[in-house]
Parts: sequence; structure tokens; C-alpha cells
Amino acid sequence: MRLTHPVSLETVRAAAPALRGIVSRTPLLENADVNAMLGGRLLLKAENLQRTGAFKIRGAYWRILHMSAEERARGAVTYSSGNHALGVARAAKLLGSSAVIVMPADAPAAKMAAVRALGAEIVPFDRDSQSSADVVRRIEEDSGRIEVPPSAHALVLAGAGTAALEMVQQAEELEARLDAVLVPCGGGGLTASTAIVMTEASPGTEVYAVEPELFDDTRRSLAAGERVGNPKGQRTICDAIMTPIPNEVTFPINLDLLAGGLVASDSEVRAAMRFAFEYFKIVVEPGAAVGLAAILSGRIGISGRTVATVITGGNIDVGRFHSLLETE
Amino acid sequence: MRLTHPVSLETVRAAAPALRGIVSRTPLLENADVNAMLGGRLLLKAENLQRTGAFKIRGAYWRILHMSAEERARGAVTYSSGNHALGVARAAKLLGSSAVIVMPADAPAAKMAAVRALGAEIVPFDRDSQSSADVVRRIEEDSGRIEVPPSAHALVLAGAGTAALEMVQQAEELEARLDAVLVPCGGGGLTASTAIVMTEASPGTEVYAVEPELFDDTRRSLAAGERVGNPKGQRTICDAIMTPIPNEVTFPINLDLLAGGLVASDSEVRAAMRFAFEYFKIVVEPGAAVGLAAILSGRIGISGRTVATVITGGNIDVGRFHSLLETE
Repeated sequence: MRLTHPVSLETVRAAAPALRGIVSRTPLLENADVNAMLGGRLLLKAENLQRTGAFKIRGAYWRILHMSAEERARGAVTYSSGNHALGVARAAKLLGSSAVIVMPADAPAAKMAAVRALGAEIVPFDRDSQSSADVVRRIEEDSGRIEVPPSAHALVLAGAGTAALEMVQQAEELEARLDAVLVPCGGGGLTASTAIVMTEASPGTEVYAVEPELFDDTRRSLAAGERVGNPKGQRTICDAIMTPIPNEVTFPINLDLLAGGLVASDSEVRAAMRFAFEYFKIVVEPGAAVGLAAILSGRIGISGRTVATVITGGNIDVGRFHSLLETE
Repeated sequence: MRLTHPVSLETVRAAAPALRGIVSRTPLLENADVNAMLGGRLLLKAENLQRTGAFKIRGAYWRILHMSAEERARGAVTYSSGNHALGVARAAKLLGSSAVIVMPADAPAAKMAAVRALGAEIVPFDRDSQSSADVVRRIEEDSGRIEVPPSAHALVLAGAGTAALEMVQQAEELEARLDAVLVPCGGGGLTASTAIVMTEASPGTEVYAVEPELFDDTRRSLAAGERVGNPKGQRTICDAIMTPIPNEVTFPINLDLLAGGLVASDSEVRAAMRFAFEYFKIVVEPGAAVGLAAILSGRIGISGRTVATVITGGNIDVGRFHSLLETE
């Protein structure tokens, strides 16, 4: 029996026209020399080239667009390590609203500075001793602000899904049949949206969640058939997708539709960032490179096939970028 | 009276189908936040995302495709500081031919290594004491190889022009009317091809050559109405466009069709590379950033207008990229 999900191809299709002119139709990149090296077709949906440097503005804008004038006056609140924060802050500004962002105290300084530059207020919290959900809830109650969650909302999921919808169209333009799509997975929203779009618009395309080692809560939860959390106190360079546990809204979708979960180590992620620099001439942040890392590390077969991954963001400062790309 | 040029919109249109599947239709990038900052529309034709990391493969492939089997067996020879070398080496390999490249001894090591990795032979020469044309001519005579010049050939110009043709189509897709297009200018081939395509396919679009300070031979030649060389012994970080004098084939086209010439200093180029990293998340080599540098430095008005520039290449190694992006 097919489950009913909070987002569908139709709700994604409904979001697309409203986002036109607000977000970019980012390119689906391909390099013939890389394909020859890999023996298959590698396609990169370059959401790092998106406005605010990440796909997150798609869902944030679509959610805030649905707020009433009175709700927009109260403003948005959310939790984010940076990319969703930038999307919410930018969308709030575009729509005459305001934003408060609960950010981990160890979030990259460049992301924090960019969020403040958009006029949003940052409330720091400690990843290990506090629950971001509790902090957000307290702000909601105290200020009347409306939560714009990073994934667990039908409109946020529909907005994110427009990236997958573009991929399907762009793959057709390139006369490519997508065998598999790998999605960097934090809260699981983009993964779930992509799975829904592919299931309905590109049948036969397998969708995988890709996570950093030690933060493979979705992979282990898929195997267990229920939501399993990560041990606390771990760290990865993939700051954008350091999530504690799959969320309640996206996990049932992912359990229903994903082909599986894959992992990439931090050193594989660094090698993938360097590969993207050398062959695709793009700046990829660590959390956005896990899919490419999984492909280059042979975690999924690409020989004779067409495999796509979403490069979810490119928000990293020059110094950190260089130190992660240095070898030895 | 309209002059007759060795390349036309028709010869460019003829090249496009043969290049499909061989070269990428690179994106025309736009960032709404950057536009808001500049008060106009900035469009970047991202040929750094092209196969071999530069637009040069377009002309090289189209030229070598026209060689007879006997000519291909003899092979290609050319002069290049790196990007054209990569295009010729890759095209020669794809078409079962071979390549010898005359490269300046001070060309970036990364470019030399990449050319060798494609199986081409490098013959080094000294920029200040030798003429690259003489070295190429000697190799032609000794080996029977066919010259594939970086710009001074009708087929090379027609191939390069396909990038401009794509820009016109992509601007239409973005509902943008191009007021001006800025082209990084070395030998002047891409500039001339772009001027021809714009004149015929996008009337009213002004085309400018942009050069590094001290290497503004085209700008000064346009002002003088005749070919004027640069003083020897100068250096710039813009290795790809350190040319001594406009060439005899492209200069008459540029004199006939260009709106003018602009310059950018090395420090403006570094700032533009950093801007491209931060806002567009792309890797731009110095010589490919002069157009963006001229725009950001206010050398041409963008307020209320739409200005495009070609990001001609992204071939730079991680270490040099970082050192050029460092501030102070």
C-alpha cells in the first residue's frame, strides 16, 4: 500500500512558478573527461551556485510566502547551522519579514557573519548540552514568531523539491536517464523531496541518502526500520549535515522511498572537494560533497550508468577551503 | 562600408552542431543578490566550467575536425600559455591526432602538467628573447605538423564564437537584453568572434576587450587605429592573456566592431577572483577575471543595465589560487 506523504509531485510543481526569478535554475554540470575517467555519466546539480549559496532558500521562501501579513510582521524563527539560516534570512528580507536563527555555537564564522549581514538575529546554542528544538520553541512562545523548520514542513519540502524537478528536466535536456541520485542528508528534507519527485517523475531512478561517518543516523535508521540517533560529542567537517537523529516528518518518507543510505569519511569528502575544484572549477562546502565523495570512493557503481548528486551548498570561507583542500 | 571578415554568424552557427556532445553548453550565471548590490544585471558566461577548464577547446576541436586523415597523422602544433594548449591536446586526442605545444617557460606548472597528462609534447620558449611564431614555424617545417593557432584562423574563430552564440540564446532564456559584453582579451580571437556574433545576432550589444594593465595592446591599438605592441619584460598575474601585440587576423575585426578597450589591474583581478569565489562559488583564473574586475571597479556602468562577461577559464592550482585570494 502506497503511503500518503505531506509532499507530492503536484505540491512541488505548484511551488516552481512562484520561485522563478527569486531563485536560480542552477545548472546540472557534466564533464566529458570526468565521465571518461569514471566510465559512466556523473551529473552535479550545482545548488552551491544558488542564491545564498545553498538550496535552502527554495523551501524558506515558499514557506514564508504563505505567511499572512500579520504572521510576517511577527517574523520567522528557525534552527540552522548556516545554509537554512541564510535562506530564511534572505527570504524574510525579500518578503518584508524578519528572522531569528538558533545556531550552534560552533557554526562556521563565515556563515554566522553572512546571516547577520542579512539582518537576522542569531541565538547561539550548544550542540551537546541543549536541544535546538527546545530553544526554538521558547522563542516561538516568547515572541510569537513562526517556525520555519529546515525540513519538517510540507511547504519547505515542496520548495526544496523544485531542485529535484529541475534535475529531471535537465537530465532530459542532456538525454540522460538517471540511474541513481545521491543526496547529502542532514535532517532528510531534500532527500525526502527528491525521493518523492524521482518516484513520480523519473520512475526507476534510485535515491540514496549520503551522510558523514559517525552522523549516519538515516542510514542506520533505514536499516533498523525506525529512527535511531547518533552518539553525542562526535564531530565532522560536514557542518551542514551534523544532525542528531532523522526527523519525524521526513523519515517515514525516506523509509518508504529510498534505495538506501551511504556514508563518506571526512578524508573522502576533502578529496571530493578537491576533485570538484580541479575538474568542475566549483567551490563545494564539505557537507555538500558527501554524495560526490561516495561516488568517487566507489560506494556506488557508476560504470556504464548515470549517477547524479546534489551539490547542496558552497558556503565556506577562503581560509577553511584552502586548509581542507591541502594534501598531507 | 561593411568589411568582410573571416568569420560570420553563419560560420559560427555551422560549428555549433558538431561541438554538441563534445563541449558543454556552459551556464550563463546570475545571482540576484549581486544584481541588487550592483543595481543592474551581471551575467557570467562560465567557460571555466567547460571541458579542459577553458573555452579554447571549442575552436581547437572545430579546426582539427577539418584536418584530413593524413594531416591528423602528422599532428597539430601551436603556441599557448596553457588553455589553448589543453584544448588542442584534448581535441587532438579525441580525433586520433597528436599535438606539440610551444609554451612559455614561465607558464603555470599546473597547466604544463595537465597538457603533458593529455599526451602532448611541450617545447618551452622564453617570452622575452624568442618569438613564439618563429618556434612554431620551425616545428611546422621540421615535422610537417599543422598549426592550430590560438586565434588567427577562421575555424578557430568560428568554434570560439559558439560560446557567444550560446550567450545570446541564454540571455533570451533569462529575458535579458545584453547592453554590453566584456571579453578577456589576449590574442583577440574570442573578442573578435564575440563581436561578430553580437553585431549580427544581438544588435545594440556593445562588445569591449578587457586586458591587464601593461598588456593593453588591443586597447591602445584601437585608439591608434593600428597594431601597437606592449613593452617587453612586463609581468601580470593574468598568464592566459599576456600577449605582445594584437594579431593580424583578429585586430581588423576588433577595430571594426568593438565599442572599446578596458583595463584591470592585478589587484582588481584578485578582488574579482575573490568576489567570484564568495558570491558565485566558482574558481576563476586571473586572466579570466579581467572582465569581472572591470565591472566591479566601475570601469563600465552597470547601473540599470545588463552587462555580461565571459569567464574564459578556471585552470589554476589550489596553492596559487589561495595565495591570490588572500587579502593583505
